Amino acid sequence: MKRTQWRNCHVATMTGGQYGIIEDAVIVTEGARIEWIGPRRERPPAGNDAKVDLGGAWVTPGLVDCHTHAVFGGDRSHEFEQRLEGVSYADIAAAGGGIKHTVRHTREASEDELFASARARLLQLMRDGVTTVEIKSGYGLDLATERKMLRVARRLGRTLPLTVKATCLAAHAVPPEFAGQADEYVTYICNEMLPALAAEGLVDAVDAFCESIAFSPAQVMRVLLRAQKLKLPVKLHAEQLSSLGGSGMAAGLGALSADHLEYMTADDAAAMARAGTVAVLLPGAFYTLRETRRPPVELLRHHGVDMAIATDLNPGTSPALSLRLMINMACALFGLTPEEALAGVTRNAAKALGMLATHGTLEAGKTADFVAWQIDRPAELAYWLGGPMENQVVRHGELRVSMSA
Amino acid sequence: MKRTQWRNCHVATMTGGQYGIIEDAVIVTEGARIEWIGPRRERPPAGNDAKVDLGGAWVTPGLVDCHTHAVFGGDRSHEFEQRLEGVSYADIAAAGGGIKHTVRHTREASEDELFASARARLLQLMRDGVTTVEIKSGYGLDLATERKMLRVARRLGRTLPLTVKATCLAAHAVPPEFAGQADEYVTYICNEMLPALAAEGLVDAVDAFCESIAFSPAQVMRVLLRAQKLKLPVKLHAEQLSSLGGSGMAAGLGALSADHLEYMTADDAAAMARAGTVAVLLPGAFYTLRETRRPPVELLRHHGVDMAIATDLNPGTSPALSLRLMINMACALFGLTPEEALAGVTRNAAKALGMLATHGTLEAGKTADFVAWQIDRPAELAYWLGGPMENQVVRHGELRVSMSA
Ligand SMILES: [Zn+2]
Ligand SMILES: [Zn+2]
Repeated sequence: MKRTQWRNCHVATMTGGQYGIIEDAVIVTEGARIEWIGPRRERPPAGNDAKVDLGGAWVTPGLVDCHTHAVFGGDRSHEFEQRLEGVSYADIAAAGGGIKHTVRHTREASEDELFASARARLLQLMRDGVTTVEIKSGYGLDLATERKMLRVARRLGRTLPLTVKATCLAAHAVPPEFAGQADEYVTYICNEMLPALAAEGLVDAVDAFCESIAFSPAQVMRVLLRAQKLKLPVKLHAEQLSSLGGSGMAAGLGALSADHLEYMTADDAAAMARAGTVAVLLPGAFYTLRETRRPPVELLRHHGVDMAIATDLNPGTSPALSLRLMINMACALFGLTPEEALAGVTRNAAKALGMLATHGTLEAGKTADFVAWQIDRPAELAYWLGGPMENQVVRHGELRVSMSA
Repeated sequence: MKRTQWRNCHVATMTGGQYGIIEDAVIVTEGARIEWIGPRRERPPAGNDAKVDLGGAWVTPGLVDCHTHAVFGGDRSHEFEQRLEGVSYADIAAAGGGIKHTVRHTREASEDELFASARARLLQLMRDGVTTVEIKSGYGLDLATERKMLRVARRLGRTLPLTVKATCLAAHAVPPEFAGQADEYVTYICNEMLPALAAEGLVDAVDAFCESIAFSPAQVMRVLLRAQKLKLPVKLHAEQLSSLGGSGMAAGLGALSADHLEYMTADDAAAMARAGTVAVLLPGAFYTLRETRRPPVELLRHHGVDMAIATDLNPGTSPALSLRLMINMACALFGLTPEEALAGVTRNAAKALGMLATHGTLEAGKTADFVAWQIDRPAELAYWLGGPMENQVVRHGELRVSMSA
């Protein structure tokens, strides 16, 4: 198996405090795995290893975007513009806008069209150091289209040098066919959609949207319990716009993560800490919606809940194409430290996907996914605002060449 | 002279309402100028013109970043991190941080070092479609270092495919040598610095920072009047943190622009409208400083003041490396429409630099600086949040090849 020594670098391993820094480090990869990592003075003999000089770069784990809706039809730039021109949300919705617009265009789009547009978006995320991404369904809201979205996610994972986790979010909104019959739609999800999609091997986890404008805690509970019967891990959109206790409930089920959380309570935080449920914070949505209530970061710290950061890439509330920008926003908008924010897109994001055993930190035995950044210290990843920061991405032990959209 | 027909595109000329759109357009360039622009059906015969197919792109004027402090020594990511870890501004300043840190490192840096670091930053701005940039001095605060900074700005303009305007901001802060003697420093600026730097041909405009923590309106007035005696246009940092009437005063002098403006009054706006002084809004600084008071956009609209948008790229309050992200922030944070924001980085930014006769819109006779974006409608330039949006930049009638830092 091919062995490579990656040299002339410093590493933020993210294994412990202070970024888990190793200065003047060497990383030895064997195939797709990290075989050895440590200070240069302790490095093992090179033998016939290939050698790559990283030019004094800072190396971090490959970035993990643990919450996206990257597959969708159409875009909503037109609505974005209308809102700023003074058209109300209500008028936009009445004209078939909002999520209805995306559902319509996602249903109409072919699998190839969805693949091509999502691929272009993922290439932008990848340019900024992302090596693993989660993609949710949830704009189909019928079996055929949810299947189509999840198949696109699988195809993206097969064809791009990127690890893709596919999440079924059939319980994202009540589709027009079930207007006023949310319970019946939940029954359809539980009896038809989840079993079929899981049987086809298209689902890595199950998510739902717990909110007054979507599904109640009782309805969500039915979906998540059904998922667990199918041996699928669960997660939840919760406490984004109001406090319904969804995050505490998800924690009670041992959910991988609860996401958004602006309105969570101390009880929710305590339950999440007990369960090891990760708090996924989504500053792009907070920013785009001009929200003013931040997630309770102090409370999460106090209870020792692990915090992840993600783009929430979606056409309505977070058209975010840079996870590195989300690092900055987590600091600037939510008050995370640069180290917390970087842990949020590496270690804790991997944990939110159930992948911490193999991803999220740089340690011997883990997958060799990492990014070499031309910066002088790790805090620069949080500090600079936008711009195409130079980097080299190593994925499965191989330098990833840049790909154009 | 080389003639080229740029075809298969739509153009947002920014000459009038609704982006000044020409669908299915052709642009004919002759050398560095636009010779003809219009709908394809009216296009002149091609003759021996070279032909470039833009693949259905939307073309905008080259972006103009009309307010940056892109030349500086050191960076302040360390302070950014300290603040988020709970260290107070006062403690950071007491330890020699803040602008003092940047002044020290800028004075210590060689001209070549300043050139190299600024060049890398400008390459990031250029990647996002910037073809003209203004660069201010103001981290020297002595004649030798202000000269060094302005020489670097000139060298950047000579060596990069980018138009650079150099602004003397000697009145940015009171240097340690004049601590407690702001009036004496202003006298030094007026009697020594400005005349010397202007005589060397290093200054395109003169700026000052009118704020309680910097210079009073009376002190600023002395600097700007001296600049006008030297036949140099003036502009002003004003009303960022408090209302001192600087913007109204600058307008009274016929200033090109007044910048920041969060605390401006209706009188200031009326004076700016009368004078044709552009309001330069800086959402990156507003965002990074977590300000809550927005510039009074309604007031500016009401009085008909032209609004520009810029990065304010600087190491302390706006480490912003993407002008396109500032378009998004102008919409998301300040409520501008996508069209106003795009005008703010094209037509009105050119006006803020006194360049509207030759730049800022796409019209026959103007400089052939434009960007072809792979998008479906102009609003997408405001809609997407971060990410390296694909584009091709034409500068002085030639395709600009991408350059690595
Ligand atoms: Zn989401
Ligand atoms: Zn400034």
